[in-house]
Amino acid sequence: MDFLDEPFPDVGTYEDFHTIDWLREKSRDTDRHRKITSKSKESIWEFIKSLLDAWSGWLVMLLIGLLSGTLAGVIDLAVDWMTDLKEGVCLSALWYSHEQCCWTSNETTFADRDKCPQWQKWAELMTGYTEGAGVYLLNYFLYVLWALFFSFLAVSLVRVFAPYACGSGIPEIKTILSGFIIRGYLGKWTLLIKTVTLVLAVSSGLSLGKEGPLVHVACCCGNLFCSLFSKYSKNEGKRREVLSAAAAAGVSVAFGAPIGGVLFSLEEVSYYFPLKTLWRSFFAALVAAFTLRSINPFGNNRLVLFYVEYHTPWYMTTRLGKYPVLEVIAVTGITAVLAFPNPYTRRSTSELISELFNDCGALESSQLCDYINNPNMSRSVDDIPDRPAGPGVYSALWQLTLALVFKIVITIFTFGMKIPSGLFIPSMAVGAIAGRIVGIAVEQMAYHHHDWIIFKNWCRPGADCVTPGLYAMVGAAACLGGVTRMTVSLVVIMFELTGGLEYIVPLMAAAVTSKWVADAFGKEGIYEAHIQLNGYPYLDQDEFTHRTLATDVMRPRRNEPPLAVLTQDSTTVEDVETLIKDTDYNGFPVVVSHESERLIGFVQRRDLILNIKNARQKQDGVVSNSVVYFTEDAPQIPASNPQPLKLRRILNLSPFTVTDHTPMETVVDIFRKLGLRQCLVTRSGRLLGIITKKDVLRHMAQMMNQDPESIMFN
Amino acid sequence: MDFLDEPFPDVGTYEDFHTIDWLREKSRDTDRHRKITSKSKESIWEFIKSLLDAWSGWLVMLLIGLLSGTLAGVIDLAVDWMTDLKEGVCLSALWYSHEQCCWTSNETTFADRDKCPQWQKWAELMTGYTEGAGVYLLNYFLYVLWALFFSFLAVSLVRVFAPYACGSGIPEIKTILSGFIIRGYLGKWTLLIKTVTLVLAVSSGLSLGKEGPLVHVACCCGNLFCSLFSKYSKNEGKRREVLSAAAAAGVSVAFGAPIGGVLFSLEEVSYYFPLKTLWRSFFAALVAAFTLRSINPFGNNRLVLFYVEYHTPWYMTTRLGKYPVLEVIAVTGITAVLAFPNPYTRRSTSELISELFNDCGALESSQLCDYINNPNMSRSVDDIPDRPAGPGVYSALWQLTLALVFKIVITIFTFGMKIPSGLFIPSMAVGAIAGRIVGIAVEQMAYHHHDWIIFKNWCRPGADCVTPGLYAMVGAAACLGGVTRMTVSLVVIMFELTGGLEYIVPLMAAAVTSKWVADAFGKEGIYEAHIQLNGYPYLDQDEFTHRTLATDVMRPRRNEPPLAVLTQDSTTVEDVETLIKDTDYNGFPVVVSHESERLIGFVQRRDLILNIKNARQKQDGVVSNSVVYFTEDAPQIPASNPQPLKLRRILNLSPFTVTDHTPMETVVDIFRKLGLRQCLVTRSGRLLGIITKKDVLRHMAQMMNQDPESIMFN
Repeated sequence: MDFLDEPFPDVGTYEDFHTIDWLREKSRDTDRHRKITSKSKESIWEFIKSLLDAWSGWLVMLLIGLLSGTLAGVIDLAVDWMTDLKEGVCLSALWYSHEQCCWTSNETTFADRDKCPQWQKWAELMTGYTEGAGVYLLNYFLYVLWALFFSFLAVSLVRVFAPYACGSGIPEIKTILSGFIIRGYLGKWTLLIKTVTLVLAVSSGLSLGKEGPLVHVACCCGNLFCSLFSKYSKNEGKRREVLSAAAAAGVSVAFGAPIGGVLFSLEEVSYYFPLKTLWRSFFAALVAAFTLRSINPFGNNRLVLFYVEYHTPWYMTTRLGKYPVLEVIAVTGITAVLAFPNPYTRRSTSELISELFNDCGALESSQLCDYINNPNMSRSVDDIPDRPAGPGVYSALWQLTLALVFKIVITIFTFGMKIPSGLFIPSMAVGAIAGRIVGIAVEQMAYHHHDWIIFKNWCRPGADCVTPGLYAMVGAAACLGGVTRMTVSLVVIMFELTGGLEYIVPLMAAAVTSKWVADAFGKEGIYEAHIQLNGYPYLDQDEFTHRTLATDVMRPRRNEPPLAVLTQDSTTVEDVETLIKDTDYNGFPVVVSHESERLIGFVQRRDLILNIKNARQKQDGVVSNSVVYFTEDAPQIPASNPQPLKLRRILNLSPFTVTDHTPMETVVDIFRKLGLRQCLVTRSGRLLGIITKKDVLRHMAQMMNQDPESIMFN
Repeated sequence: MDFLDEPFPDVGTYEDFHTIDWLREKSRDTDRHRKITSKSKESIWEFIKSLLDAWSGWLVMLLIGLLSGTLAGVIDLAVDWMTDLKEGVCLSALWYSHEQCCWTSNETTFADRDKCPQWQKWAELMTGYTEGAGVYLLNYFLYVLWALFFSFLAVSLVRVFAPYACGSGIPEIKTILSGFIIRGYLGKWTLLIKTVTLVLAVSSGLSLGKEGPLVHVACCCGNLFCSLFSKYSKNEGKRREVLSAAAAAGVSVAFGAPIGGVLFSLEEVSYYFPLKTLWRSFFAALVAAFTLRSINPFGNNRLVLFYVEYHTPWYMTTRLGKYPVLEVIAVTGITAVLAFPNPYTRRSTSELISELFNDCGALESSQLCDYINNPNMSRSVDDIPDRPAGPGVYSALWQLTLALVFKIVITIFTFGMKIPSGLFIPSMAVGAIAGRIVGIAVEQMAYHHHDWIIFKNWCRPGADCVTPGLYAMVGAAACLGGVTRMTVSLVVIMFELTGGLEYIVPLMAAAVTSKWVADAFGKEGIYEAHIQLNGYPYLDQDEFTHRTLATDVMRPRRNEPPLAVLTQDSTTVEDVETLIKDTDYNGFPVVVSHESERLIGFVQRRDLILNIKNARQKQDGVVSNSVVYFTEDAPQIPASNPQPLKLRRILNLSPFTVTDHTPMETVVDIFRKLGLRQCLVTRSGRLLGIITKKDVLRHMAQMMNQDPESIMFN
C-alpha cells in the first residue's frame, strides 16, 4: 500500500513571511474546479455542490458587504457617542449622542439646535452651574482626561492583543495582495481589536482618521469569510481575489463612494485584478454601501457624502516610537493643548473641510462668510456677487494660516503611532485650507482689481466670478493626490463625496497636476514608501530599464559553490536530508544527472521535508540509503535492499525557465505578471542557476543605488 | 566591412494580419530608452531631446484630446445642420440649424420656440403655402429624398474610399489592442472618410449612432499622432498604449463622460492597461472633454449630459449584405416609412430617451404626463403624488409597446450595414421604453392598490412613491449592460450622462443583475461575439479549465513531419532558402545540432528573408553554399571557400519555453499576460515542438466544441 496517495494537510501551503507562487495557485484551483465539474455529473447532490461552489464567490461578496457595512455603521455610531461622552451625557438615554439627545427636544430654533436640557455637560452635572471659569476649566480637564483614557485604552489593547491592528494597514494589504504571507494580519483577533481601538482612537480626538483602517477592517472580514469556503481558504491566489474586492468594500463604506472604492482597489491597492474581480468588487462595494445606508448612521437618506470624520497621520518613526504608550499619550496631550485656541483646529477635521468647501450663501453664519453686503443690491440666495471681505474674513485668514502650519506639523508628529490610523482626511484638510486661502485671495483681487486682464474676460462687475469653496475642494483633491498618487479613483471619490459632478474638469486637472509635481520629487506614493521602509518584497509597476541579463542576477554567482540540485534517480534520502540541513533554499531543481545538467523539474523544500518525514514514519523499508526517485517508474529492487522513495508526485514538472541571455527587464516583467516565486536559468538546455523574487528585488535596489539588504523578507 | 551592422528599415516589423510579440516590443523599447538615456549625458541638445522623448507621451495625449474633441464638436454641429436640412433651410444664414436659426427670432413663447419666419420648410419655400395635404406630402417626399441621398453618399464613399470605415469599429480596435496588425484600419484615409460618412449616416435618420464610431475616430487620431514620434510609430507595443488612451478620449467626447471613457477603455476595450496608461488615458479624456466643451456644440455650459443622438445597430449579416448600397437604401426607406406613424419612433432616439427619463413635473406637456390631477391638492412642482393615469398615458402606453417591438426588430435589421454605426443608443432606447412601461404599470398599481403588502411599507397614500422615469433610466442601463456586459464603466457613464449620482445604487444593481442574466445565456458580449464572427485571433479573459497539457497542443503532432529547425553552424544559405520556400512558418528555432536538439534561440522568418536577400546583393562571397552561423564566432575560412553568413544579430537568444508537462491553462495564461506570439516546448532541455497563438486559439475553440477553423488569421 502506498501511503503517499493522500496528500498531507500541509503540502502546498506556505510559511509565514514568504511569497506565494501565483501560477501554482492558479493551477491548483483549476485542478479543483475540474474535479468538481467531473464529479457534478455523478449525482444531483454533487451537482448542487458544484453550483454552490460556482456561486460561492458572489456569496462571499454578499457576506463581506453586509459585515463591513454593518461594522462601519456601528463604528460611526459608537464614535459619535464616545466623542460626545468626552463633553457630557444625555440624561434621558445614556446611549444617545449629543445630536440624538437633542432631536427629541423642543428647542427648534436653528441657533439653539445643540442646546437642550436633557444634554448635560459633566461640570454642569457635578456642580449644578453652567457658566464661569471654574466650570469651563473643569469641563476642559475632564475632556482631556477622557481623551487620555481613550487613547491609553486603545494603545494598550493594540499592544497587548493585536500588534497588527495599528496603522492604516494599507501598505501591508498592498503587500499581501502582491502575494506575500503575513499570518494573523487579517485574523479575527485583529478584526475585533482594530474595530474597538479604532473607535477609541478616533473618539480620543487624536489627529487620525478611520478611512484607511476601514479598508483593513473590510479585508479582515474578507479573510474571515474566506475560511468558510475551502475554495478560498486553501488557495492563497483565490483568497487574494476576495481581499481585493474587500478593499473596495472598505473604501465604499469609508467614504460612501462605491465606484471610488472599486477604482481605489484597482489603482492603488491590488496587484492581480482580472475583470472577474472587478465585477465582484463592484458587487461587494454595492452591498456594503447599501448596508451602511440602511443602518443610516448620519440620519439622512444619502450615502455619507461629506460627513467623513477626523484625520490621519503619515508614517515615520519618532524616537518616542520605542515607548508607544507614552508616545500616544504625549501626542494626544499636545494635540489637545495646541488645537484648542484656534477655532479651525478645535473642531473636527471633517467639519472643517465641510465648512471650507461651502460657498457663502446669504444665510451662512460662518466667520468665513463675513462679507460686506452692498445694500443697493437685492439678489436671491444662490446668486451673490463677489463682495469685499469684512473683518471676520481677514481674521479667519490668519487663523487658517496658523491652522495650516499646525496641521502640517502635527500630522508629521502623529506619524505611525501604534494605534489604528488612516491617511486621507489630514491631507485633504491641509489642501482644503490652502485652497480656501488662495480662493479668498483671488476673490478679493478680482473684486478690487476687476479691470486686470486676467479677470476682465471672465468677471462681469457685480457677478460672482470666484468661488473660494471650489478652490478648497480642488486643493483637497490635489493634496490627497500628491500624497497617494491616485488619479482616477481620487476624482471619483471626490465627486461621490461632494456630489460635485460638474467640477469634474477642475478636479481632473488638479489630480493630473499634483501627480506631475509630486512625481518630480520622487516616484513613490506614501504607501510604496511605507512598503520600502518595512522592507516588504513588493514588486512595483515601475519600469526596469537597466541593461542587465538574467545571467548577472542568477545564483550561484562566480566564486560561489555550485547550485544545489537533486538528480532524478541517484540521490539517497540521506543526501536529501543533508542538503536540507545545509541550505535554506525554498526548493531544489531536479536534473537528469550531474553531468548532463538537463532540467526535469523543481521540488519545494517544504514538500520534501514533509514527505520524507512521513515516509520514514509510515513506509516500511525507507531508510537513509533509500534512493529517491523522481522518474516515472522506479526499478524493481529486491526486498532485502532499502526500498526506494518515489517522489514524482511532489515534483513540479513545469518549472519556469528563462535563458541566461534574457534581459532583466523581461525577467522582471515575467515575475510581475505571472507572480512567480522563482525562475530557473538555462543555457542551451543546461541548468545554470536560479533567480528568486528576492534576487530580483535586490538587483533592482542595487540598480537604483539603494541598499539591497533593505529587502528583508523572502 | 560588415554590411549588416545597420539594421534594415523593415527588420523587426510585422506583416499585415499578424500578431505582435509584446515581450519583444517591450524589450526593444527599453533598448531605445537606454540609448537615449546614455546619450543624454553627452550634450545639452541630446539632453533636451531625451526630455522631449520622456514627455512625448503626454504631448501625444494632448494632441489626441484636442483633435478628437474638435472632431466630435464639428460632427455634432454638422449633424445638427444636416438633420434639419432634410426639412428646410434657414433664410437668414444657410449654415444655421433650425434651433440656431430661431434663436435670433423674436418669438419668445415656449410653445412657439421652434417656429420662426427665417426658418422655412422646403415646400413652403417652393410653393409659398404652409398648410395642406399637398404641402405635407411634398415635405415628406423631399425628406425621404434627402435621407436616401445622404445614406447613398455615405455607403458609396465607404465602399470606394475606405472599406474599414464601416461599423462601429470597436471589435476591431479591441483586436488591434490585443496585438493584431490590421494595416490601414486606423489610417488617415479611414479617419477622413469615417468622419464625413458618420455625419451623412447619422443625418440620414437611419437607426444608427455616432458614439461607437467616435471611438474609432479617436483611435485614428491616436494612430495619426503616433506617426509623429518614432517612439510610438516604430514600436507596436507602445503604439497600443496610445490607442488605449485614445479609445478613452473617444468615449469621453461621445458621451461627455471622461471618467466613463477611461473605465470603458479599461473594462471593455484594452488588453494591456498598466497604471501609466491609466493616467495618460485620464489626461487625454480630460483634454478631449474640455475641448468639446469649449466648442460647446449644444449651447450650454455643461458637458453633453443627456443630449446623445441616434441609435446603433447590432452586428449580423443579412443576405442583402452582398449588395451593401441596396441594403442601406432599403433599410433607410423601411425605417422612414415605419417610423413615421408612431410619435415615439418618429423623433430622434435621444429625444425619446430624454423624455422617458424625465419625471412628470407640473409643467410637463408630454402625453406621458397626462395624469388626472386631484383638484383638492395643491402642491409644489417637485412634490406631486402618485395620480391616476389619464387617457393620454394609456394611449402612450400602447404606442410605446409598438415602438418597443419596432425598435427591437429594426435594430436587428440595421445590423452591420456598410456605413459607420454605433451600438449604445438603440439598446438604451429599448431598455428605457421597457423600463418606462414597467414604471407606469407599477405606479398605477401602487395608486389603485396601495393596501397591497408590497406597497404598504413604502407608499403613504398621497405621496409620490413610484418614479417611472427612474425605471426608464435603470432599464436603459440594464439593457446596455446586457448587450455589452459593461459594469463599472456602464454605471459611471450613466451617471456622468444623467448627473444622477443619487441613483448609483439602483444603477449598480441593474448592471450586476443584467450581467448575471445575460451571462446565463452566453458568456460573451456583443464585441466578443463580433470578434469571433470575424475570426480574429483574440485571446479573451475567460478561464481555461480543461485538463490538457502543452504536449497535446504543440506541433508537430504525432504522424506529422518533424519540426523545421535550423542548426547553429551547419545549415547553408540554400537550406535556409528551401526551408523558407517549403514552409510558411513565421519563425524557426535554432538548435545546437539535429542530434542533441538543445535549443539556442529563435529566428523570425521575415528577418531571415531580408538578411539573406541583402547579404546576397551586397556582401561578397555569400552564395548558396555559404554556411549560416548563429554562433558567437564563425570559424576562419580560406578566401577561396564560400564566405560564411553571420546571423547571430537576428537570433532571439531568449525564446520563451515551457515544458511539455505544462498544463494548458498555464500556457494560456502566459500567452495572455505576456502577449506572446509563440512559445517553444521542451522536455529535459530538448526541443520538442512549438505552440503559436493560433494553436492556442484553435485548441480553445476545439475544447468548446467550436470549429477550430473559425480562427482565420495568424
